[in-house]
Amino acid sequence: MINEEARALGAAPNKIRETFAYGLKRKAEIGENNVFDLSIGNPSVPSPDCVDETIARLATESKGTMHGYTPSPGLPDVREAIAQNLNKRFNQNYSGDNLYITSGASSSIAITMKAIMQPGEEVIAPSPYFMEYRTWAQDAGCSVVEVPVRPDDFQMDVPAMEAAMNEKTAAVIINSPNNPVGSIYSKQNIADLADAMRRKSEEFGHPIYLLSDEPYRELYYYEDEKPAWVPDLYDNTIVLYSWSKSMSLPGERIAYILVPQSVENWHDVYDAVCGGGRLLGYICAGTMFQQVVKECIDAPVNKEPYDINRKIFMEGLDKIGYTYIKPQGAFYMFIKALEPDANAFVERCKAHDLLLVASDGFGITGWVRAGYCCSKETIEGALGKFQEVWDEYHK
Amino acid sequence: MINEEARALGAAPNKIRETFAYGLKRKAEIGENNVFDLSIGNPSVPSPDCVDETIARLATESKGTMHGYTPSPGLPDVREAIAQNLNKRFNQNYSGDNLYITSGASSSIAITMKAIMQPGEEVIAPSPYFMEYRTWAQDAGCSVVEVPVRPDDFQMDVPAMEAAMNEKTAAVIINSPNNPVGSIYSKQNIADLADAMRRKSEEFGHPIYLLSDEPYRELYYYEDEKPAWVPDLYDNTIVLYSWSKSMSLPGERIAYILVPQSVENWHDVYDAVCGGGRLLGYICAGTMFQQVVKECIDAPVNKEPYDINRKIFMEGLDKIGYTYIKPQGAFYMFIKALEPDANAFVERCKAHDLLLVASDGFGITGWVRAGYCCSKETIEGALGKFQEVWDEYHK
Repeated sequence: MINEEARALGAAPNKIRETFAYGLKRKAEIGENNVFDLSIGNPSVPSPDCVDETIARLATESKGTMHGYTPSPGLPDVREAIAQNLNKRFNQNYSGDNLYITSGASSSIAITMKAIMQPGEEVIAPSPYFMEYRTWAQDAGCSVVEVPVRPDDFQMDVPAMEAAMNEKTAAVIINSPNNPVGSIYSKQNIADLADAMRRKSEEFGHPIYLLSDEPYRELYYYEDEKPAWVPDLYDNTIVLYSWSKSMSLPGERIAYILVPQSVENWHDVYDAVCGGGRLLGYICAGTMFQQVVKECIDAPVNKEPYDINRKIFMEGLDKIGYTYIKPQGAFYMFIKALEPDANAFVERCKAHDLLLVASDGFGITGWVRAGYCCSKETIEGALGKFQEVWDEYHK
Repeated sequence: MINEEARALGAAPNKIRETFAYGLKRKAEIGENNVFDLSIGNPSVPSPDCVDETIARLATESKGTMHGYTPSPGLPDVREAIAQNLNKRFNQNYSGDNLYITSGASSSIAITMKAIMQPGEEVIAPSPYFMEYRTWAQDAGCSVVEVPVRPDDFQMDVPAMEAAMNEKTAAVIINSPNNPVGSIYSKQNIADLADAMRRKSEEFGHPIYLLSDEPYRELYYYEDEKPAWVPDLYDNTIVLYSWSKSMSLPGERIAYILVPQSVENWHDVYDAVCGGGRLLGYICAGTMFQQVVKECIDAPVNKEPYDINRKIFMEGLDKIGYTYIKPQGAFYMFIKALEPDANAFVERCKAHDLLLVASDGFGITGWVRAGYCCSKETIEGALGKFQEVWDEYHK
């Protein structure tokens, strides 16, 4: 008999990817330039030149011999290069032994949840949050406990999170810069969370891990709001990074898990990560893209086009009259829907070929997420559609 | 608290990959040509020219824009191309809707087990078999029931498999051409299994799925022993294929799951596969390699170098006096160890820098697996080592 849990998940695919598929279909029908798909986080900024140059060079040199298996945690020289890059940027002392390369942030999170949680345990997520956390926790036999962020500034509500911690709490997962809100948790906000987690780890007699899901690390727009290096604030932090956004490689599935030496029994935790990978069917991350990220690891991240879009988007929304959260990072605009039911609002927008994602799946009602990781022209066109929808609601 | 099941798996990584890592280290110490690593299935035949040509062309044309997400089951045109290729070769009527592209055969198996099994159920595997089946079944809360093949010809022992089927049997998984033995199950042998499975499906009132794990499909060495197209013999067959071996792309993790229309409630099964993928943290298979397999799908598979190695290997082993199973397919030689404890034999070989895998992990004692997917020179050198080891046992 098929697994009903899997079937139900597969029959109701996540809304973001469903909308993406609809967008592709609709573009084929009415033309690419007439659909304003702000539903997905597919970066529009091209990968750094280094990426395709490296690929072309590897392919030319390869003569068909470069596509073999790598050790499961990744090629040793690639892991070492990542460690050195982190050491340089964040003044750390990591080595390749701290790193496990994965097939994307999704893998990193699923593997880590499998590794550090026992069935029946809980992971706390400040909400809004990335909805697939629930699916991966579910696969580990666990559940996500949502704790709403503070409604005024969308920072974490640490006292509420502390109150949610109990003996079943295995981990807290944070995502800063944040998808879907575009907020960045301040250093103080994370330090407060760390204090609370230390208190509760002691109270319950076991470490509560902090999973720092940070594929948007480099995408911040104000120098004084630069994301903190989370392991500096809390020892039992596991960092989950992906090059999907910084190198515009989301479809190539290349990412890593960092288990710092500061993590209690870090060797055991690292082993559990390796075992989590095996359980989930990972053999190794793609050989070629392991080499690509090594060669391009120091390539600067081009966030300026997103910042330009962000400013145009904010100005346009201001002019029309929409309420939104001013994005500090990532490439999402979190906009208040024009009616309490965000799904109904999204449907109205869809009729105008403006594709958005309702906030409900992120654990909060009444908002929509609009990715501005698209072309400037798409944002400008989308603003025209936002105006049409506004007018429809206000006629 | 970390997950002890995951930690234990990670701390005792699978022997094949452990040996592979040892081999890399040892090669760095004493030179590449002095280590005879027959432990892993890393193909030595270069990928078809089409592969690196396509990669280089895509990279040149891309300007950094080709690395975006694809829909989770894969790009529609890629899935359609795979379906057409299968239709042409096996006279079928599939479409892209029957296909779900994955990150390697390991993913395909883990996802499918998650999709079609309920916790507590069983999957039957003729043994010897690929040891990681156990890990992926374990993640689905299930177990593998091993049924030894017939000792004389290493074909499936269908009466014993039928006797092992019970109300908890969700599936049978077969791997032909077989890793580790190199055998191919005959059409009659599979037809007999199908008859037994139909009887038991009816008796227990639910379909028992046949998972056909066939990454070695094209690697057969006798035209009259060509692997059968399993869905022709049993309706509830799910095919798990990978290009790791046929295109020499094992590290690039590109494979698929085929759910034919003949599968009972195939749409539900397909949905469960999609859900299984979500649970295990898959987003999509690598975008670039999806396009590569599409462009190269009709490229001929170059199995001749393996066949040459196979013949040299058999001749050499015959001359020394080893007992082995004559390989009909894949690229493994299954050789009787020179003492009952295959692990001890493997250690003796390792001292001669001849790296093999003991059969114990494949569910049978007393044999070793030697991959001949290496250079001709490695096989020739390895035969010298086999002679040394033989002499050591017979002095």
